[in-house]
Amino acid sequence: MKEEDFKAIEFVDGKLRVIDQRLLPGKLEYIDLVTAEDVAEAIRTMIVRGAPAIGGAAGYGVYLALIEAKGDTGIFGKLCTMLRTSRPTAVNLMWAVDRVMKKAIDSGYEKEAVKNEADLIVQEDREMNHRLSGIGISVIRKGDTILTHCNAGALATCGWGTALGVIKEAHRNGLDIHVYADETRPLLQGARLTAWELTRDGIPATLIPDSAAASLIRDGKIDLIILGADRITTNGDVANKLGTFMLSVVAKEYGVPFYSAAPTSTIDFSMKEGKDIPIEVRNPEEVKRFGGILMAPEEIEVYNPAFDVTPHQNITGIITEKGIIYPPFDKNIERLRKGEEL
Amino acid sequence: MKEEDFKAIEFVDGKLRVIDQRLLPGKLEYIDLVTAEDVAEAIRTMIVRGAPAIGGAAGYGVYLALIEAKGDTGIFGKLCTMLRTSRPTAVNLMWAVDRVMKKAIDSGYEKEAVKNEADLIVQEDREMNHRLSGIGISVIRKGDTILTHCNAGALATCGWGTALGVIKEAHRNGLDIHVYADETRPLLQGARLTAWELTRDGIPATLIPDSAAASLIRDGKIDLIILGADRITTNGDVANKLGTFMLSVVAKEYGVPFYSAAPTSTIDFSMKEGKDIPIEVRNPEEVKRFGGILMAPEEIEVYNPAFDVTPHQNITGIITEKGIIYPPFDKNIERLRKGEEL
Repeated sequence: MKEEDFKAIEFVDGKLRVIDQRLLPGKLEYIDLVTAEDVAEAIRTMIVRGAPAIGGAAGYGVYLALIEAKGDTGIFGKLCTMLRTSRPTAVNLMWAVDRVMKKAIDSGYEKEAVKNEADLIVQEDREMNHRLSGIGISVIRKGDTILTHCNAGALATCGWGTALGVIKEAHRNGLDIHVYADETRPLLQGARLTAWELTRDGIPATLIPDSAAASLIRDGKIDLIILGADRITTNGDVANKLGTFMLSVVAKEYGVPFYSAAPTSTIDFSMKEGKDIPIEVRNPEEVKRFGGILMAPEEIEVYNPAFDVTPHQNITGIITEKGIIYPPFDKNIERLRKGEEL
Repeated sequence: MKEEDFKAIEFVDGKLRVIDQRLLPGKLEYIDLVTAEDVAEAIRTMIVRGAPAIGGAAGYGVYLALIEAKGDTGIFGKLCTMLRTSRPTAVNLMWAVDRVMKKAIDSGYEKEAVKNEADLIVQEDREMNHRLSGIGISVIRKGDTILTHCNAGALATCGWGTALGVIKEAHRNGLDIHVYADETRPLLQGARLTAWELTRDGIPATLIPDSAAASLIRDGKIDLIILGADRITTNGDVANKLGTFMLSVVAKEYGVPFYSAAPTSTIDFSMKEGKDIPIEVRNPEEVKRFGGILMAPEEIEVYNPAFDVTPHQNITGIITEKGIIYPPFDKNIERLRKGEEL
């Protein structure tokens, strides 16, 4: 299996070219984003989604902001804040905006340097995902059946993928795996994006409604669970796509290993516990309508949180580009922060 | 709150008139079923759904079969078998077909007697649901927030409802409840049917994706869970709509009471354990398409079980028209079988 033949985000001719992920799997269409506001809007509307891909896109957003600001650091700062707050939960977004802003300030707002920093985020992300995947396959045995949730593949990152990167690496290494992909309501990233990536790569896979996972786990049909992360706190709690927590409870009850895979940029070293992670609540229409068709009474109230928090007690390990973090998570994440070996 | 102003099933002018539940909440449309095959097809395609409603419809199916058979008991038997096997999991279907067939045989194939027996199932079901609801509200305290899954309301029964009947009764009694309704993938009975019934009845309610329930349960936002049943075995295991089992695991972990509400006709006295209940696996298209729009790659394999089994260890009580069955379920269900008081 080769690298993917598409790029979720790519900077071309002064524009950020992104796949409109809302249209997959029906259409593979690219959109050119030319302003920082375009980038923020693409992140808000989930044209671009997935914590690492959002980070990569936002890095270029900062570069576009610098060009638009025309030397006005006040305007530049405001555009960066807009980018930084375009979605609240994934920490990679803030991390990437801060990193490229810092480069802007440190370089005296030198455009070339800022563009290079944004390029570097993308390049590093792809490399980290490959490293992480190479490390992650150590938890997979030949013939394993792996459950994943949402999409943590090439589409969710600057390339290759995290959780799905590990899965692809296992397939590439002939580990003879089978994947169950949760459809992932309400926006169906599992059905639309993960299933699309898996079929393109020829990886044996089965799509299931989110609610079908529990019986499969109980009945011994799942050997391990691997999924992504949008923010990890220093005690090892993981915010990830809605539905992750439910899986973790069932996995723990029935003794199935549960791994999160994410680059270390997903760790928020400023936050100790998952309960402090802001959880984005999205538009009710995402739940009520489907392809424009009303699937619920117009007047019904809807609660549509995009993420949930899985407590570290339910997590077997967190697969990163620097190694697998095992319990005690607080101690091992602190070692990581200090630059010590895991 | 009055009785509902619609009937999921009603026998009118020699035809079985049913709501086409596939079209709700967009359209409230009735379809007339004139042959036993029409009835079986309506059950298969879920025009009529919900274990007690299926039972009620199938009773009339047997009557229509008797008319079609024109005295040929061989043809009558074949048509009844077709009805009996139109869906495999809900036991009320088999129970109702067997009951009306027995009346046919016992009465010497007397049409009037058979029609009366089918009428009686509908009438009894509505009465049982009211009795069950009156008993069930004893588990609800003033101000409770109640989670329900799928639809166990007037649409799922011959009238009033089981789990949703209890909820409506609590509202009618001024218990100041709030309901969370799981959307219930893949066919969205929660979003399309339960939310529709709740809004018509003016019961405060919030619709959620199925995966949102777990965090609400953990965070103390749910006081109790009440949902229906499609088959109950003599040890107290409950087959119900896909997603029920996952909820039960989380509810148990976080100490939230978990009730199934169903008439005693849902108990399969011939079956000891839930693992023996046949679980219907439905068409992949229900998961892959939405309002005709493809939401997954055409070639992806799909596993689409309609039900799952919740072990009795995860169940607080089973609310029936004869009282609430509490653990030890096997002993108490045996008492019920013997006609003893619960």
